[in-house]
Formats: sequence, C-alpha cells, structure tokens
Amino acid sequence: MRDFSRDHQALSINTATVRKQAKLDEIIDACARHQIRLICPWRDQVQAVGLGRIAAQLRDSGIELSGYCRGGFFPAADGAGLKAALEDNRRAVDEATALESPCLVLVVGALPGALTGKAAYKDIRLARAQVFDGIAATLEYARKSGMPLAIEPLHPMQAAERACVNTLEQALDICDALDKARRGALGVAVDVYHVWWDPKLAAQIARAGRERLLAFHVCDWLLPTRDLLNDRGMMGDGIIELQKIRGFMEEAGYGGAAEVEIFSEDWWARPLDDVLTTCIERHRSVV
Amino acid sequence: MRDFSRDHQALSINTATVRKQAKLDEIIDACARHQIRLICPWRDQVQAVGLGRIAAQLRDSGIELSGYCRGGFFPAADGAGLKAALEDNRRAVDEATALESPCLVLVVGALPGALTGKAAYKDIRLARAQVFDGIAATLEYARKSGMPLAIEPLHPMQAAERACVNTLEQALDICDALDKARRGALGVAVDVYHVWWDPKLAAQIARAGRERLLAFHVCDWLLPTRDLLNDRGMMGDGIIELQKIRGFMEEAGYGGAAEVEIFSEDWWARPLDDVLTTCIERHRSVV
Repeated sequence: MRDFSRDHQALSINTATVRKQAKLDEIIDACARHQIRLICPWRDQVQAVGLGRIAAQLRDSGIELSGYCRGGFFPAADGAGLKAALEDNRRAVDEATALESPCLVLVVGALPGALTGKAAYKDIRLARAQVFDGIAATLEYARKSGMPLAIEPLHPMQAAERACVNTLEQALDICDALDKARRGALGVAVDVYHVWWDPKLAAQIARAGRERLLAFHVCDWLLPTRDLLNDRGMMGDGIIELQKIRGFMEEAGYGGAAEVEIFSEDWWARPLDDVLTTCIERHRSVV
Repeated sequence: MRDFSRDHQALSINTATVRKQAKLDEIIDACARHQIRLICPWRDQVQAVGLGRIAAQLRDSGIELSGYCRGGFFPAADGAGLKAALEDNRRAVDEATALESPCLVLVVGALPGALTGKAAYKDIRLARAQVFDGIAATLEYARKSGMPLAIEPLHPMQAAERACVNTLEQALDICDALDKARRGALGVAVDVYHVWWDPKLAAQIARAGRERLLAFHVCDWLLPTRDLLNDRGMMGDGIIELQKIRGFMEEAGYGGAAEVEIFSEDWWARPLDDVLTTCIERHRSVV
C-alpha cells in the first residue's frame, strides 16, 4: 500500500467541500498555495467562472482533475425529459474533455421529481431501466472523445432522490453489460461514504479491478448522522475504516487519487485555508 | 394476492407506532375496540405493565402476536458484554414464548457503543462475526422452546448503530449457514422501509421462501426524509411500492400479517384512536 504519511501527492479536493467559501478560481489558487495537485470540480462551479478561464487557470497552475462532477440524472417522467437529460450529459462529457478530466462521474438519478418532494412515479425498476439506457447512450457519445464514465453508487438512503444505483455490485453489473471488453470506457467511483456498510464491499472492489476503479472518494460517517445529505464528516472523525478500504482498492490495482468530498454545514462554515490544511493533515494521518 | 380492501384481518400494529400515546395495556384495549387482531409489542412496553398481566390480557381479548420486538444487539467490546447480550437474548426468547409469539425479531446490533456516540471499535467485519456467533448461540436456546428467530436486516443508514445485517441477501446467508434444514427455526423479518431500495429485493424474497419469511413490516419512505430513525411515513404517504412488495412476499408463499411499524414524531403526536383508524384505512387502500 502506498505511504500517504509523507506527502499529499495523491490528495484531491472535491471542490464541493469548500463551495460556500469561495468561487472555483479562488479555490484553485488556494489549492496551489497548499501544493494540492488535484481537484474534482462541479459543473455549476465551473460555469460560474467560465469554462475557458478555468481550463486556462488549470494549465497555468499545473493542477489537474481527478474527476468531473457530474453527469447522470437520467430518469424522467416523459420522453422530452429523457431527451433533455441525454443532451445535458453530452455537454457534461464535452466539458470534462475540455478540462482534460480522467473521467466524468455519474450520479445516475432516481425517481423523477423526488428531489423536489414529489415523485412522478414510484417504480424504481423503471428508474433503473431508464438509467441503464441513459448510461448506454452517453457511453456511445463519450467513447468518441475517449472520456471514461464513472458510475457512482450512492448510499441507499439517497435511492429515491439522487441515485437508484446503490451498490457496487449493481454498478458493476451495468459495467459488465455495457463494456464487456473492460477497456476503461466505463467504471465506478468508489465513495467510502456510500459503500462502507456493504457486506460485499471487498469482493466487489476486487471484482472491479484496475480497469473499472476510476475514482476513490473519502470522508467519514459521523455518530450520530443528523442529515441524510449534508452531514458528512472529515476523515478520522467517524467510523469508516479508511485505510482498510484504501487497501482493498490498491490490492485491486487502483493507484489514483484519494479525493476528499465532504458536504457539511460545519466545514462550509470554516475558513477555506483551514479546511485545506485539515484535509492535508488527515490525508497523511488517517487515509 | 390476498384482497386487503374488505377487512383488516391481516393488519398488525407494532406497538412502537403508538408508544408515546399510551401504555401497552391501553394500546391492547384500543386495538380490541378497532377489531385489530394482531400486535407486535416491544419488550420495554411489556415490562412496564408486567409480562403476566399482558399475557392474560391477550388471552382474554383474543389478540395475538405477529412477532415480539426484540432480541439482538449481540456485538460488544469485551467478553462480559458478549455474555450479557446472550443472557438478555435468552430472556427475550422466554418472554416471546410466554406471550406465544410466532417469532422473536432480531435487530442484531452493530459497532458496540455507536448508539451512544462512541464506537468501541470500527471493524464492521468483527461486529458481523459477533452477530453470527450470537445468533448461533441464541438459536440453540430458542430451538428448545420452538421459538423461531427472525433476523431483520436494517437500512444501511443504521449500519453503524443498530444493525450490521443490512440486506436480505446477507440475512439469508446467515440463515443458510445456521439452519440448513429450513425447518422454520431461523428466518427473516422483511420491513419495507429497510429493503425497498434493494436491487435484489424480489430475487431474495423468492430465495427466502415460505419457511424463512417470518414477518412483513409496512410503513413508507417520505420525501424528504428528515431523520435517520424517527421519520417513517404512514403507508401511502411516501414512495414505497407496498402492493408490489407484498406481491413478492405472497408469491414466495407468505400468508401472514402486514405489521405497521412507524417511528414518527408526527404520528406519536396524534391521538391513539386516530392513528389506529388511519392504519386500518391505509391497510385496506394501499397495502
């Protein structure tokens, strides 16, 4: 296993972690100050500054992407909605390509409308079928620009609103169906927060193997967890066995970044530099 | 599939649903008034009135149990804790037997201490091994009195604090390992709230079959869900496909009760009779 205690070369910051403190250009400047080499920005953060400006700033600073957040949200109540989702995913692929991201992360979506409190339908198998078709269509487009798609299984507590792909096994079944050749066009993003509880975690990470392990996200599960979305903990503050899971990843051939992705009112309330300093320290000590 | 629209013969009330409104003897009286034939009481509710009094009241009223809540919480930080858990589970078996329950429901426990905010260890595989051993020991005791044990997989969002058995597949693997003969000594409690999201739900219910399907709990998943424990919805108020899941159960041979188990500050705040009336109405219309 790689030794993370001596430097933070493998550390990436998912920029949602500090989205309330600063705009993306300021976040990139701050990362450069802290010798953080990798980030994973969100589309809305890029758009708020401008794709061209962010691409130029990344080139100038030497900071690279560990991923791009996010495509997905494929299910819809009608044909027009399904079509709009595919168009939006093609734009996400284009942006990821412009930013030279190693992959586009997919949060696949779930019951249409559920995020705003009213589901257009309740049939989760239909949502899963729409997700499968949406990934298939987006994959066809993404192959042309060589942009790998990383399906991120989300925690089952987000199955109604955000993603109806909820286990690594389910995500890998989709990968096997759509990318038999395992050429790296389709894989998974393993976020410890979403998968730590899974009794099949070690076996499914091993099954995924190097070709399918496209991203590794870290944070922690707090006791108690007070909110289903925005109460993720800083690494070391909760009960997830971070080093053990990183061990599963590296055993399977993963050698990429450990990307910190925290949504937390507590951490959004702290100064940007403090958060980055803490990420670096925890990356070295507990990841 | 059975027709639930004409009566509520199959309705059971898990008495935690109305635990803040009344003591168990009053709840039983109220159920009798509403022609509710089945309940599933909790141990603390029985103890607050007295096991002998409750047993007598049940006999007099003709109300029977659909299950008894609950055994489990096997993991512990040391040998004394493990031993105490086994003793407590033997007492739970004895109480279930005295109340002529068809099964003892097991909420198996997870990281010791997590429920009170500080886990004694983080190794979920160790907790799972302790759970396996605890079920094995309790099963040996329960066989003597012929009391079936029903493992209840809990939602993965409760994997740290309440149960590290989180899918039906995982629970059935334990059943297969400890009760190869499938004689009904060990099975599962299927609570829609905990399993509705599972992509393998239909297949695992079919795998369980009649001998392993010992209980069926209903409520609903609300949009949004505001609390990880006490925000369960009344049937019909959320997005769970209740009739579809009951169909999976009956297809697999289940012919028992549909037990309403709601933990909700909203429903605890309503008058006891209103809650029971609503349960009856929803049982007929949406379960």
